[in-house]
Amino acid sequence: MPPTTITLLTDFGYQDHYVGVMKGVILSINPQIKFVDISHNVSPHNVLEGAIILNNAYSYFPRGTIHIAVVDPGVGSDRKAILVAGKDYFFVGPDNGIFGLVCNRLKEFNVFELTNSRFFLKPISATFHGRDIFAPIAAYLSKGVPPAEMSQKIKNYQSLSLPVPIIEGERIKGTVIHMDGFGNLVTNINRGHLKKIGKENSLKVKIGERIITKISPNYQSVNRGKLLALIGSSEMLEISVREGNTWKMLGYKEGDEVLVF
Amino acid sequence: MPPTTITLLTDFGYQDHYVGVMKGVILSINPQIKFVDISHNVSPHNVLEGAIILNNAYSYFPRGTIHIAVVDPGVGSDRKAILVAGKDYFFVGPDNGIFGLVCNRLKEFNVFELTNSRFFLKPISATFHGRDIFAPIAAYLSKGVPPAEMSQKIKNYQSLSLPVPIIEGERIKGTVIHMDGFGNLVTNINRGHLKKIGKENSLKVKIGERIITKISPNYQSVNRGKLLALIGSSEMLEISVREGNTWKMLGYKEGDEVLVF
Amino acid sequence: MPPTTITLLTDFGYQDHYVGVMKGVILSINPQIKFVDISHNVSPHNVLEGAIILNNAYSYFPRGTIHIAVVDPGVGSDRKAILVAGKDYFFVGPDNGIFGLVCNRLKEFNVFELTNSRFFLKPISATFHGRDIFAPIAAYLSKGVPPAEMSQKIKNYQSLSLPVPIIEGERIKGTVIHMDGFGNLVTNINRGHLKKIGKENSLKVKIGERIITKISPNYQSVNRGKLLALIGSSEMLEISVREGNTWKMLGYKEGDEVLVF
Repeated sequence: MPPTTITLLTDFGYQDHYVGVMKGVILSINPQIKFVDISHNVSPHNVLEGAIILNNAYSYFPRGTIHIAVVDPGVGSDRKAILVAGKDYFFVGPDNGIFGLVCNRLKEFNVFELTNSRFFLKPISATFHGRDIFAPIAAYLSKGVPPAEMSQKIKNYQSLSLPVPIIEGERIKGTVIHMDGFGNLVTNINRGHLKKIGKENSLKVKIGERIITKISPNYQSVNRGKLLALIGSSEMLEISVREGNTWKMLGYKEGDEVLVF
Repeated sequence: MPPTTITLLTDFGYQDHYVGVMKGVILSINPQIKFVDISHNVSPHNVLEGAIILNNAYSYFPRGTIHIAVVDPGVGSDRKAILVAGKDYFFVGPDNGIFGLVCNRLKEFNVFELTNSRFFLKPISATFHGRDIFAPIAAYLSKGVPPAEMSQKIKNYQSLSLPVPIIEGERIKGTVIHMDGFGNLVTNINRGHLKKIGKENSLKVKIGERIITKISPNYQSVNRGKLLALIGSSEMLEISVREGNTWKMLGYKEGDEVLVF
Repeated sequence: MPPTTITLLTDFGYQDHYVGVMKGVILSINPQIKFVDISHNVSPHNVLEGAIILNNAYSYFPRGTIHIAVVDPGVGSDRKAILVAGKDYFFVGPDNGIFGLVCNRLKEFNVFELTNSRFFLKPISATFHGRDIFAPIAAYLSKGVPPAEMSQKIKNYQSLSLPVPIIEGERIKGTVIHMDGFGNLVTNINRGHLKKIGKENSLKVKIGERIITKISPNYQSVNRGKLLALIGSSEMLEISVREGNTWKMLGYKEGDEVLVF
């Protein structure tokens, strides 16, 4: 049987021992695990950003992959610790919306509250459940311990949703929902939305005071340093500067309005 | 037999080929190795910071794990290259105090000077012993080459110790010894020190001109953006701003005095 | 048979899901792969910097290692996607010079254009060929699919070369070609160039207005904070500040002229 993959997504950064320690705890329980880091540079405490990155990533992994996500400002409080068991993937982390976008996409899934402290690392700290709860639960799960033995099925979990673009006739009013490390601005407008308003070859995009006069097929369609709009790798409309950083050069960022017309 | 884990802790950063090359050298000798990165963002040349991070991490790994630590401003000089062999863990790196805190905690251990250049990569550079000495030694160790074949037992090694808090009656005078990536300030005061002065529920903490009126059970015990004190994941008293960065917001940092009373 | 190693070198940074997703795609095809990250902090769109880092790293890995390099400002345009097959290593990425320095060093190699979309991930995005083309091709290659089945041999590829130092009598005029994360400045002058002008023990180095009066054997040969010149780990002349950052302290950087005399 191939080794199980466990991915990690956190806001722990790359400076401290936190991520390494989680992996150590997991390997102590299951030495065969393969790790993949999704990112540890989620903006501190930014659950929405973590949820977006996880949602962009999880489905590209082998079936059976366990995704741990820890952006957890409520650690040590009474927020629940949960396990989401989908048909193909598992998710382990705090119940604060970090799995909200994933749950919106999964067709069948169960949510379990992690209640059996027999599977936790002791003493349980008030600040590092990544080490004390999420890492060991993921490791035992990878060894075949059934969720029902470590946790209790629950009905309610913290949901999350992204703003939906508003379509009015031949106009779409959307929003920048994410900025990547290149400074590219990902909007909440997808290919389907664009099709709905028709006029495929004459679409214009407005952000701030700037109007982009077409949807480009790729970055090279405009000159270096020029602003463009294109369909990005998550099938959403993105706004970029060719070989530049849209945010640094023009100041546009998450939350900014984007008009397509 | 499960694969051996080798961890890496350096100040090499994430920009260059240095860490990747060390892993390449190791895999060329033992292709079965599992790697875990502890951190490569130790402040450049800061041996104490490296020692603290390693000390926070090493004991969470499976028995037999080999920890390589390279914060090595003396590379290429006559500082020794060493291997510390404990009951459960091995440590490979420069003899400059980076293993000092670990050695203070290990009960039984031997220190070996890496003297047998037959196990080094040639030519040995003057600037990158991580690649030329520490990586191959760790790899051969993982393949079962006994330390005595690669090195010579020595008695003296570079020790290191953290400042000890001063307890005077019902007062503890401590110090911030470490700042993590969130800006949390870790002090040298632990749970045991707090117990010694008694009055568990009425402890106050002073840093700079600020007085914190209790030890909180978790971050959520105070409002967002407020300063708090709590017992962190390494069982030390920590000072934090809830969902904020204590250092960026208040300027407190390593070396600052902390009073508990 | 030992597991195949795939290395990754990109300018994707550590903030987004991009690198993790490439690994997920690869593990979905070949779950036995071992990953090593070379760096994901290549300066955005800087093909030359990526080529230098790859050139410093590739040869330290086990035979059969597949190196993926994606610094790819031309993604989605008509730039080719290629596979370079050397005697010991494979390279997968865009045909934009990123493999230029490697090809200058390899003795025997063939270059293939990735033309068989049967091996790509669909739909192929215009912005993320790392995920859609390079990752799956590397994964199938690791499973033994022959290059000729996925691609077509080609004769021309994008070459790249570094500036060559000019030797005039007892003088070498060179250039800083790379700055590492410590701020060390790597020049294009190697040990062989130094030997050519003789006078081994009386060499001087000039950068900007500063003259360094010898080649030091290691960092400790000068006082802390002082400028020095030494032969670095890639066998090139480097200019450093002991336990300091040459770039931050003195402002010297890539492209600056370096004289040896």
